[in-house]
Amino acid sequence: MSETKKTNIILFSGDYDKAMAAYIIANGAAAYDHEVTIFHTFWGLNALRKDGKVEAQKGFLEKMFGKMMPRGADKMGLSKMNMAGMGPKMIKKVMKKHNTSSVPDLIEMAQMQGINLVACQMTMDLLGFQRAELLDDITYAGVAAYLADAENGNVNLFI
Amino acid sequence: MSETKKTNIILFSGDYDKAMAAYIIANGAAAYDHEVTIFHTFWGLNALRKDGKVEAQKGFLEKMFGKMMPRGADKMGLSKMNMAGMGPKMIKKVMKKHNTSSVPDLIEMAQMQGINLVACQMTMDLLGFQRAELLDDITYAGVAAYLADAENGNVNLFI
Amino acid sequence: MSETKKTNIILFSGDYDKAMAAYIIANGAAAYDHEVTIFHTFWGLNALRKDGKVEAQKGFLEKMFGKMMPRGADKMGLSKMNMAGMGPKMIKKVMKKHNTSSVPDLIEMAQMQGINLVACQMTMDLLGFQRAELLDDITYAGVAAYLADAENGNVNLFI
Repeated sequence: MSETKKTNIILFSGDYDKAMAAYIIANGAAAYDHEVTIFHTFWGLNALRKDGKVEAQKGFLEKMFGKMMPRGADKMGLSKMNMAGMGPKMIKKVMKKHNTSSVPDLIEMAQMQGINLVACQMTMDLLGFQRAELLDDITYAGVAAYLADAENGNVNLFI
Repeated sequence: MSETKKTNIILFSGDYDKAMAAYIIANGAAAYDHEVTIFHTFWGLNALRKDGKVEAQKGFLEKMFGKMMPRGADKMGLSKMNMAGMGPKMIKKVMKKHNTSSVPDLIEMAQMQGINLVACQMTMDLLGFQRAELLDDITYAGVAAYLADAENGNVNLFI
Repeated sequence: MSETKKTNIILFSGDYDKAMAAYIIANGAAAYDHEVTIFHTFWGLNALRKDGKVEAQKGFLEKMFGKMMPRGADKMGLSKMNMAGMGPKMIKKVMKKHNTSSVPDLIEMAQMQGINLVACQMTMDLLGFQRAELLDDITYAGVAAYLADAENGNVNLFI
């Protein structure tokens, strides 16, 4: 009769600290045998971007969005005390001191734990992201798939 | 024995992109036969404001709040890359290109689908909003009504 | 057979208005006999800081974080319209006019109602907070404790 618990997180935010919170909760839940999904939408998609530049044919606006947004979690700013990029450096320094995993490490851990990383196809189109720009082993889906997961979820969060 | 699923969203944020996310999830949930409520509080109330100026007798602070806050979803900014209003223009341009519904359209769709749009009376009073300033067919309620909905909810989100 | 309902709020944000929303929902839920936990992490920890300076031995970065972050809820800014601190003053003025409880009052009320106020030990270490700097009667825990509460929660929110 033991039922698998489900955790479904929408990662909407493009902030380093919020992505960190999302992935710490997700990895924790997976460690406690939850079935875990992180649905990345809007600025949250940036966490899944590959590090370097990826060749892609894009329109003008899509190119601008692509340029202005951070390529990957490691380049994201903080939601508070960003201080023109000094905040993230300080945070990363204390994280290193305390042996806390970085967000890219947390994402890798999530993939190793079998957490389902979903990219919202609608906002991919909107912001002009192409699949080649994102990490491998990502699922592409929309609000219907999110709701199918979340309506049976135990822990649903919007971050 | 099939039970109606419930989605309850608190829209606290006054950002265009977050309102868009809230209304896309809400409309999706309604399409999947969920009973859906969006509880607008604090800056989220701005999404429900009528477009033009509404005559209302107000104190000085309330007048100032009213003037400084956007009148309706169409005038809200972005949570990221707002760039003094250029961000929302860019987003709306790509939205048009991709035939994505605008937030005012999504709100209209929500009302047509019978989604319960609630305005938080306490923050109405706090920010000095009067009912005549908001769209028609809004419910006015407080935290007790929210909790009565949410404690039986399947998908509860704070946006 | 009546089962106690559970409300679990993660307070991640360090904004006055978001802390206010979190504590209003929490106090409301406690009044309706929910078992309520607020898990303070990242900037949300600032809400629990004591008002004055507390002597503590810290490294350089931890000292800087400590200095730059607000000491207690009363000194936090707004998520919107902060306007270099003018926004919080305006909000507090209208709150007084409408006899709305301040956030420090709401926190006191929460403690009197037996709401479980938790501080995230991991972010305490990260930001260099020491227990002497926070209010009394706080529980210290991590993501495992949060998940144990939330997986049986009725209302789970990330604020």
